[in-house]
Amino acid sequence: MLLGALEAGGTKMVCAVGKEDGTIVERISIPTETPEITMPKLIAFFKQFELAALGIGTFGPADLNPQSKTYGFITTTPKLAWKNYDIMGEFKKALGIPVGFDTDVNAACLGEAAFGCMQDVNNGIYITIGTGVGVGVMVEKQLLHGMLHPEGGHILLAKNPSDTYNGCCPYHDSCLEGLAAGPAIEGRYGKKAFELTDIPEVWELEAEYIAKALVNYILILSPERIVLGGGVMHQEHLFPLIRKKTLALLNGYVNTKQLADIDTYIVPPSLNDNQGILGCLKLALNAL
Amino acid sequence: MLLGALEAGGTKMVCAVGKEDGTIVERISIPTETPEITMPKLIAFFKQFELAALGIGTFGPADLNPQSKTYGFITTTPKLAWKNYDIMGEFKKALGIPVGFDTDVNAACLGEAAFGCMQDVNNGIYITIGTGVGVGVMVEKQLLHGMLHPEGGHILLAKNPSDTYNGCCPYHDSCLEGLAAGPAIEGRYGKKAFELTDIPEVWELEAEYIAKALVNYILILSPERIVLGGGVMHQEHLFPLIRKKTLALLNGYVNTKQLADIDTYIVPPSLNDNQGILGCLKLALNAL
Repeated sequence: MLLGALEAGGTKMVCAVGKEDGTIVERISIPTETPEITMPKLIAFFKQFELAALGIGTFGPADLNPQSKTYGFITTTPKLAWKNYDIMGEFKKALGIPVGFDTDVNAACLGEAAFGCMQDVNNGIYITIGTGVGVGVMVEKQLLHGMLHPEGGHILLAKNPSDTYNGCCPYHDSCLEGLAAGPAIEGRYGKKAFELTDIPEVWELEAEYIAKALVNYILILSPERIVLGGGVMHQEHLFPLIRKKTLALLNGYVNTKQLADIDTYIVPPSLNDNQGILGCLKLALNAL
Repeated sequence: MLLGALEAGGTKMVCAVGKEDGTIVERISIPTETPEITMPKLIAFFKQFELAALGIGTFGPADLNPQSKTYGFITTTPKLAWKNYDIMGEFKKALGIPVGFDTDVNAACLGEAAFGCMQDVNNGIYITIGTGVGVGVMVEKQLLHGMLHPEGGHILLAKNPSDTYNGCCPYHDSCLEGLAAGPAIEGRYGKKAFELTDIPEVWELEAEYIAKALVNYILILSPERIVLGGGVMHQEHLFPLIRKKTLALLNGYVNTKQLADIDTYIVPPSLNDNQGILGCLKLALNAL
């Protein structure tokens, strides 16, 4: 059986075809332009195969509520060409197969849950820190949606008193994304993250903001594991800093065996940046 | 059929007997001393009735994991006489009936879900702001436990720059409980909350901290309704302040019909401070 997977991003669309066990047999990447230009290319790619189902993990916000009239739509995105676009409906119409639908970061969370480092837990979170910050949440093996879907990248944090950067989020004075996403690092120091690898104070501050966010995720969601992915987290020296600061800020208030083994609690992704596309494959399987 | 309910608090134990529909037929309150003194009184009360099951909502932290060897224990509480105490096991032994077990604030959340203002939603949170701050979380009609259970009262917040009070939490520099629980109000102003009702700046600051926390709960959990209970929230003039500040801080980033109707989104409890004991009744029913 072949399954289709679409990781719909703001700059590129990653399309793959794979099997139930997570094997990818074909894969392409197409730039994200307008639906008029991009959708026919995506549909043509998937039509080459006899697919049983398709799974879509999309940039958002998106309507994940099956009871809603706009279920399967990308909704109030600043990418105006895709605003209120029925992406799930268009694929259903074009391919005539079941389509699974969730956010990109929930898909990555599901990928790690189904094929990666969260197979052994029932509750976990996947955080991507790159151009933006996204948080996918799994509760008792199910992706959390709630009223809309988590937007945990925008939680409000206390700024470090010595940080004079105003943040890059147009909505919030001091949210995680505004203070710690890639563009915030570039905005604060005038250089890209990978050009700053050797400057310790850059990563001390970055780890402080990420740790402050993790403390709040831990206290609110009580996850059994936290996966930190995305471009910024390719700076692997961040992991020990984040682990240390998270424990220091929690200050012994939560005592669990998971926190006692912090190196296996706060971890990098295990799937070589394939967690998103593999999660989409699982969304396809779940849609069957 | 009669069900037992025990709301186990740090200062008092509220015991009740009721029916499936939420009717309470008998109710007493016993001071919380040591297990040696208090437990026989509780057991004697419940033994007067032919109970089908008992539900316990307890102060914590508590072990809610049915797979754990210490399931049903109160664990690392600062109330030393109750530390590592097998409260669920003792009741099972003494009464010989099924016993349901959760935290006090999860029980209150369940009470509102089963009999009160959260009957019509699948995802909601109940927050108590009193001597401490606790957060009970419901996801798809189930209480959230995860690794331990949420301890959302201790999330870290940005202090208001004009607030010189150091917070009353022994663990955290600036968590919600340390900045906004009853003892924090008394510590900051030297008077109890109810003596400060007429001083607007007290409630502006209190509402600011609560709103900052609500924004983070909304972004992480995406609840469909938020219930604010506890002694501090008896200051009903806080509600409009909190609603306004929450929307101002979100700044339009999350657009949902629920947030558009903020007066029915952030609400007081609907059960006259019986939400906890009624939730325990539901825990008993679920244990059957």
